[in-house]
Formats: sequence, C-alpha cells, structure tokens
Amino acid sequence: MNVDFLILREEFRRVLLKIGFEEARAELCARIFAENSRDGVHTHGLNRFPSFVRAVQDGLVIPSAEPERLTAMAALESWEGNLAPGIYNAIRCMDRAIELAGEYGIGCVSIRNTNHWMRGGTYGWQAAEAGYLGICFTNTIANVTPWGGSEPRLGNNPMVIAVPRAEGHIVLDMAISQYSFGKMQEYKFRNEALPFAGGYDAEGNLSQDPGKIIASQRALPIGYWKGSGLSMLIDILLTSLSGGRTTADITKGGAESGVSQCFIAIKPESGNEALIEQIVEFTKSGHQDAVRYPGESTLAKRNTHLKEGIPVNEKIWNDVLNM
Amino acid sequence: MNVDFLILREEFRRVLLKIGFEEARAELCARIFAENSRDGVHTHGLNRFPSFVRAVQDGLVIPSAEPERLTAMAALESWEGNLAPGIYNAIRCMDRAIELAGEYGIGCVSIRNTNHWMRGGTYGWQAAEAGYLGICFTNTIANVTPWGGSEPRLGNNPMVIAVPRAEGHIVLDMAISQYSFGKMQEYKFRNEALPFAGGYDAEGNLSQDPGKIIASQRALPIGYWKGSGLSMLIDILLTSLSGGRTTADITKGGAESGVSQCFIAIKPESGNEALIEQIVEFTKSGHQDAVRYPGESTLAKRNTHLKEGIPVNEKIWNDVLNM
Repeated sequence: MNVDFLILREEFRRVLLKIGFEEARAELCARIFAENSRDGVHTHGLNRFPSFVRAVQDGLVIPSAEPERLTAMAALESWEGNLAPGIYNAIRCMDRAIELAGEYGIGCVSIRNTNHWMRGGTYGWQAAEAGYLGICFTNTIANVTPWGGSEPRLGNNPMVIAVPRAEGHIVLDMAISQYSFGKMQEYKFRNEALPFAGGYDAEGNLSQDPGKIIASQRALPIGYWKGSGLSMLIDILLTSLSGGRTTADITKGGAESGVSQCFIAIKPESGNEALIEQIVEFTKSGHQDAVRYPGESTLAKRNTHLKEGIPVNEKIWNDVLNM
Repeated sequence: MNVDFLILREEFRRVLLKIGFEEARAELCARIFAENSRDGVHTHGLNRFPSFVRAVQDGLVIPSAEPERLTAMAALESWEGNLAPGIYNAIRCMDRAIELAGEYGIGCVSIRNTNHWMRGGTYGWQAAEAGYLGICFTNTIANVTPWGGSEPRLGNNPMVIAVPRAEGHIVLDMAISQYSFGKMQEYKFRNEALPFAGGYDAEGNLSQDPGKIIASQRALPIGYWKGSGLSMLIDILLTSLSGGRTTADITKGGAESGVSQCFIAIKPESGNEALIEQIVEFTKSGHQDAVRYPGESTLAKRNTHLKEGIPVNEKIWNDVLNM
C-alpha cells in the first residue's frame, strides 16, 4: 500500500498536536518523519513514529521543552537540550552551526540531554541545502561490542558527512555497527540472513542471523577494531564538547534518552564543484551503474515516492490512523 | 637489533641535511620519523625513510619549499603546500588550526599540493599535547575498491581523531582500508595470512593473502559499503575545502605526491575529564585487558622503546647509515 507524502505528513501532525506539540513544532517534526519515509528510511519514518509517540507519553521526550545555549566561544557553542524532541533540537543546532559558519567559516554546536534525532542524514541534507558542508554525530545506548570484548559497551554512534552539489547532494549517513539495528530488523522481518557477519550471538560467535544479534545486542562495528575505536572516539568527542551523557550513562539509564550530539557546518570554497564531479566520475568509472555515491539511491527513492506515493507497512499505518 | 631513539633521530637528521634540508627543518622531520619508529609505527618511521629520501631526490618533495596561506575567513583557512615535506606542512597546519581554535573555539586549515604526512597520528598527538581535540584527514593514491566495483578508485584516506587526557592521550589513527598497506607489508614480510579479508585478488575475489592484495592494489574498505562511502566523502571534503588534487588526479599522476589534507582543532570544554574516564572504564569493563583504547598500545610501545631502544630492520638501518 502506498500513501501520499502530504497525507503521511498531515497524519503525523495531527497525532503530534494531540499529544501536546504546539503547532510549529508539530509541523516541523511531522515533516521530518514524513521525509524520512519519503527518502526510503522507513526505520526512522513511519515505522519509528509509534515508539516516538510512546517516548513522549512516557516523559522521555518533552514536547514543549526549549534548548538553551550554555557556553559560547566565537565559532564553538554548547547547548542544553532539556529533553526536547530530538528532531527539533537537531534542526536548531545545525541551523546555529550554519549561522556560525556563515560568520567564522566553520561552526560547531554540541548539545547534551537531547533525544534521538531519528535519521541523522536529515541534518546533513539540511546543511547541504543551505550550501554548507555538514558533519554531525550522536551517541546511543550500548549495543556494539568493542574489539577484543564480548559485551555491548559501545554505541552504534552514527555519523553524517554531507556535501552540497547541484546534481544531488552527497550525504553519507552511517551507524558504526556494520548493520544498523533498523537494517537488521528489516532482514529479520523478511526472514533473511545478513550478507556478512553483523554481530555476535549469545555465545559470542560472529553471526549473520539478525534475530540472534538483535537479541544479544552485540553488533559488530565496521572494520572490527577500527569501528570499535571510531565509536569510542565519537562518544569521547561528544562528551568532551557537550559535558553530556556518555554511552555508559545512557546504557545505565536503561532507555535511549538524554543523548549527546554535535553539529559542524563548514563553508566550502567556491569554484571546486568540478573537482567533486571528478571524484564521482572517477569512482564510478569502469563500474557501470554498480557504484553509487552516498545519497544517490536516497534521491532516486525520493523521486519515485513523491510520484507514486510512499510504500507503508499497513499495520503501522493503521495504528497511526487510529492514534 | 635495537637502536636508541637519539641515535635514530641523529642519523635521520644527518641524512636530511645531506639532501638539502636546512637545519631546523631537518631537525623537525628527523624527530618525527624517529618518533614514529619509537611509537612502533615502523612503516612510517625508519622503514619509510629511504623512500622519503628517494622522493626528495626525485623532486616529488621539495625540501626548502614554504607553504603559503591562500584564503582566510576567521576560523577557516586554506593553504598551498608548494610540495614542501609533508611532515613540515602538516605540523604547520595543525599548529595554525590550534591557534585558530584558541581564538575561535574551533579552527580548520586545509592544504593542497602537500606531501605524504607519514604517520597521521603525529598530528593528533600534536593537538592533544597542546590540550586540543584534533581531527585530520588526507587523501592518497587510489588503492581501495569502491563497493560494487572491482577497480581501485578510492584512496585509503586516513583519518585521525585525538583527545587530550592526563593519563595518556586517546588517538585514533586509521586508514579506511581494513588493513593499511603498511600493515599488509608487515604480514607479507612475516609470511602470514591476514586474520580477515583485506581486499581482492587479481580475479576480484575477496582475499586474506597480503601479497595478492598489494599486487592488485585493491584493498577492501572497512565495513564494505560504509568505508567505501567514508573514503569518498573524505576526498570530497578535502577537495571542497582545499581545491587541491583529488584521489583521481593523484592516481592519474602515478605518484603519491601533491595530496590534499585538512586539520581541525577544537577547544574541549574543561571539567569533562571524568566523563572521558567513565567511557574508557565502561568500554573495558568485563573485558579484562583485552579491550584497549586507541593510543593505549602506542604509549606502551613508546615507553618500552625509550627504555630498551627501538627494534629496527637491520638491512634498512644499515642502508640509512650508509646514506
């Protein structure tokens, strides 16, 4: 079943108003949830919406909270998120980073006590739309196993890197786990094995069974020891800048709320657009259509879904209609 | 055979003076080469020194060249490297990024037409020693295969993230290939297979044979499609900021010279040191000594090598003594 983008967005808005969002904020968050589904990131669009509503009802996300600036030193700021909706805080922070980059060439805004930003790529696209390079990262609850260990002690700490481009922005949006838990849920839903090992089973053996890995919460980081180090450094950078909760704190709290995030915007030098095309062309050369740049398939899905409607999980869609 | 740090450094200095380095620059580059060996990164210390000397003699590296600032916008600068020694340019750029961060909270310096920085971690340690968070990255000649492709079209584009810490800085220094070519050379030298697939053989099959991968120049990026995207984005960020040569340009040129790099320094918020310790402790908890933070084993090797001397490849050491 396909649903039109505007209908999806309107339903989200209706529900958010009902659970206490004021008008502008409901509109913003509804748009982002709908855009995530529109771009094919169902795990952070419609499919995530019901659990977002529950997080609001459980008091983990406070719909009316406002973020506040805590410290500022020219191009570097840190903010307190006050547990406002993660989407709202993240949009605000990237907007501020872009403003700072407009003034100083680069801007960096960290935020503590914020909430899940849903799809990280949103804020990369936001920077690219404004004509800026964007880099952002967040920490999460522990569900990745450090190299040499057997217990989940690292977040899958996604990072986003975005570059504006006339023919379609280049946006890398990746979790540090080889497969995001959302992706593993999709494989599990389809009763498929993962193409490569994605984590450990309960006995500590590498596994391609998404169900076993979701159960053990022991995802494998990309590149074994390399992603293990990268996940740790993202958490450390975030904590060092924001003073916010670490993956350790979030994990001990038992719910993925009150996370730490960072948003960097950089003004690209003008006149280098042809060099970016050269990279895209060289990378693809000799590989026909098998090699894509990050963001390419997103754009393709977006165009299809805007034309033909967004394919939805009917059960979840009906749940939302009945909210 | 072990050689004392000071003797190694003095020999490097002697050779660099002989091939046209002026005094201060010879001292700086000799120190960095010796420190790389001291920290156990032999591939970018003694073992790399002879090919660095050849690059100078071949005119790829110009010992007396000076970098120049091209553009400046408050916290963001871009520089022209003029093919000066990569170590010298990189130290200069990170110093400047640190200065900018001291003024604006964050500083970002990109440089084009520079040369191989040897061990990227050097500039992470430099930032951390100065009390700053450091992030840097470089592009390289193409030797990594993009996901979905079969030809080397991406650089192994190393990235470094460093965080200062009283008990030992945390410094992640990683190439985007699952194994750096230096590491694969070490396995090949010891006639050992790689523990995990590290690239493709000439027929395009995933392989654990370091010799076959070095021959094909088709390394596997960390995390398959994820590292493929990350490598591409690093090249694009560098190009967009510096206007310098892309991995495509460097590869077409046939020699790894005139590369593009970027150096970011950020002022950490004071008072968050205990949170960093919490991350280190939580990550290690339940894993005894099997889990290490990035930089931990570097520090252990440094201490051992300063006490007991640096183990050297005798053939290479004799080559240097005879230069």
